[in-house]
Amino acid sequence: MIRVGIVGYGNLGKGVEKAIAQNQDFCLSGIFTRREPSSIMAQPGVTTALVSDILKYKKDIDVLILCGGSATDLPEQSASLLRDFCCIDSFDTHAKIPEYLKTLDAVGKECGTLSVVSVGWDPGLFSVARAYFCAMLPEGVSNTFWGTGVSQGHSDAVRRIKGVKRAVQYTVPLEDAIIRARRGDKTLTVKDKHIRRCYVVADPALHDEIRRQIITMPNYFAEYVTEVHFITEQEFERDHTAMPHGGMVLRSGKSLSGSTSELELSIKLESNPEFTGSVLVAYARALYKLKQEGRTGALTVLDIPPAYLPLDRDKAIAELL
Amino acid sequence: MIRVGIVGYGNLGKGVEKAIAQNQDFCLSGIFTRREPSSIMAQPGVTTALVSDILKYKKDIDVLILCGGSATDLPEQSASLLRDFCCIDSFDTHAKIPEYLKTLDAVGKECGTLSVVSVGWDPGLFSVARAYFCAMLPEGVSNTFWGTGVSQGHSDAVRRIKGVKRAVQYTVPLEDAIIRARRGDKTLTVKDKHIRRCYVVADPALHDEIRRQIITMPNYFAEYVTEVHFITEQEFERDHTAMPHGGMVLRSGKSLSGSTSELELSIKLESNPEFTGSVLVAYARALYKLKQEGRTGALTVLDIPPAYLPLDRDKAIAELL
Repeated sequence: MIRVGIVGYGNLGKGVEKAIAQNQDFCLSGIFTRREPSSIMAQPGVTTALVSDILKYKKDIDVLILCGGSATDLPEQSASLLRDFCCIDSFDTHAKIPEYLKTLDAVGKECGTLSVVSVGWDPGLFSVARAYFCAMLPEGVSNTFWGTGVSQGHSDAVRRIKGVKRAVQYTVPLEDAIIRARRGDKTLTVKDKHIRRCYVVADPALHDEIRRQIITMPNYFAEYVTEVHFITEQEFERDHTAMPHGGMVLRSGKSLSGSTSELELSIKLESNPEFTGSVLVAYARALYKLKQEGRTGALTVLDIPPAYLPLDRDKAIAELL
Repeated sequence: MIRVGIVGYGNLGKGVEKAIAQNQDFCLSGIFTRREPSSIMAQPGVTTALVSDILKYKKDIDVLILCGGSATDLPEQSASLLRDFCCIDSFDTHAKIPEYLKTLDAVGKECGTLSVVSVGWDPGLFSVARAYFCAMLPEGVSNTFWGTGVSQGHSDAVRRIKGVKRAVQYTVPLEDAIIRARRGDKTLTVKDKHIRRCYVVADPALHDEIRRQIITMPNYFAEYVTEVHFITEQEFERDHTAMPHGGMVLRSGKSLSGSTSELELSIKLESNPEFTGSVLVAYARALYKLKQEGRTGALTVLDIPPAYLPLDRDKAIAELL
């Protein structure tokens, strides 16, 4: 049994907890939080404790799954936790991944631990798709689409507008842009590929002003086609409290003789944090196996053979190859 | 430069030759055939020789790409060539892969060479998709569809019927079955998922009898929905001499709380042998790197990290992760 500690018990931590229950070779050892541990309703036998007390539980944990955010939690926590634990995270600030990886690689090698960084679906499953597709079609054009799904950052930006009671923003890929991407269009920008659709609960007297503030907000909305829909609190509660997401990676390439190949990965998730949690658990298994083989430092999903994710390599070769 | 020898110069061998020209770190060293070598029109500087003379060229070759068929060529050639060369092949008799792998693993370990077996799109890209999808959604249903594309075996079966001048058989996935697969239908058989569409050139007086023989042919057609279209020689030449193919791997899974995730890889190829050739070249690069690291024996696509396929790991991490 691979004994897991979850650090951070928000939506992602709860997703990981559910995924562990679906993998018979895993057990949840503890949940570690910065909040009051007694507020967590854990299953019997699962420790709940403050992150600051985590060293007390070192002997009970094989892998820590870090479920904090990429903006502040992970940069603060991951290097220090890696000194004592093998860790896996979903660090998703794409531009900072090489530096983050380098820092953790040095810590892991120094301390004899192993880290797998940036695990989820993007970065994660989409990254491996991009790597396979680019290598298999060296002359071609790749495009990634996100959605339809909730963007937390954009939802927060709308919620900060005065008078907004509740709000959610969906990133929606444009069908026409997908068709152009399939044909290998290399001119598509993120803004050409997506619209931003907002559902807002607010006092009707403020609707016009709120709409104006949303669609003119620089960086977030002004450069995009943005839709604003005002709905009632009841409609919001009924239709917009789930966390769906999805997206696609496409590559269109040409052979030397001009024949076209189109490769496409698409995913559709009713719950973004539950799927991300499930991906983290699969890679936690790979991390555990690699650590058993003596690997230390930090790795990415691109460094891990697919055969390390399922329970058994020989069974995967017989049944999945 | 990775110096490649191509063994077998049919459609796949020609696809590999084209793919090598699109990868700057590769050069084609020689083409080896069982036919008369002088019949091959190779680029200047490329050796053409009989396979039986291949040992003379041992020092000029880093990787052999075996482009023969899985029925007889590969089982006859691969173990003996692996004694002297690192080899990669597209062995695609799924049921026999574990045994084939085991045989080559023993030879490679004995001789200090490395083999990568069953590389292409199925087995190959589809296999890695199945492995990722199953590990990421442990409770779910997978389905693979093939087509629209030419099945060589079924085309041959039609051509053997008396009076048939030319024939091609396309395997066509059924839209309705794809929708059921997306919903996680676990009852779908290969026969539920595909129809078999034949285009045949033959004397009109024989059409009824040929149609009857096709649709009643056991194993090949009798169990399937089969369409037979008689066309003219000119129509055949114009519309049915290319080798398109494609297909999809789908997995629909549920989390512990019942949320659904749908993962889908789909590919659409104007030229099956050219894409397969391109995949073989990407994995030949991985094989070369792994051999440099001292690996011997035999591996599958499931054993190879995605980062080994592109030219440069750090660049892939910075740009694709």
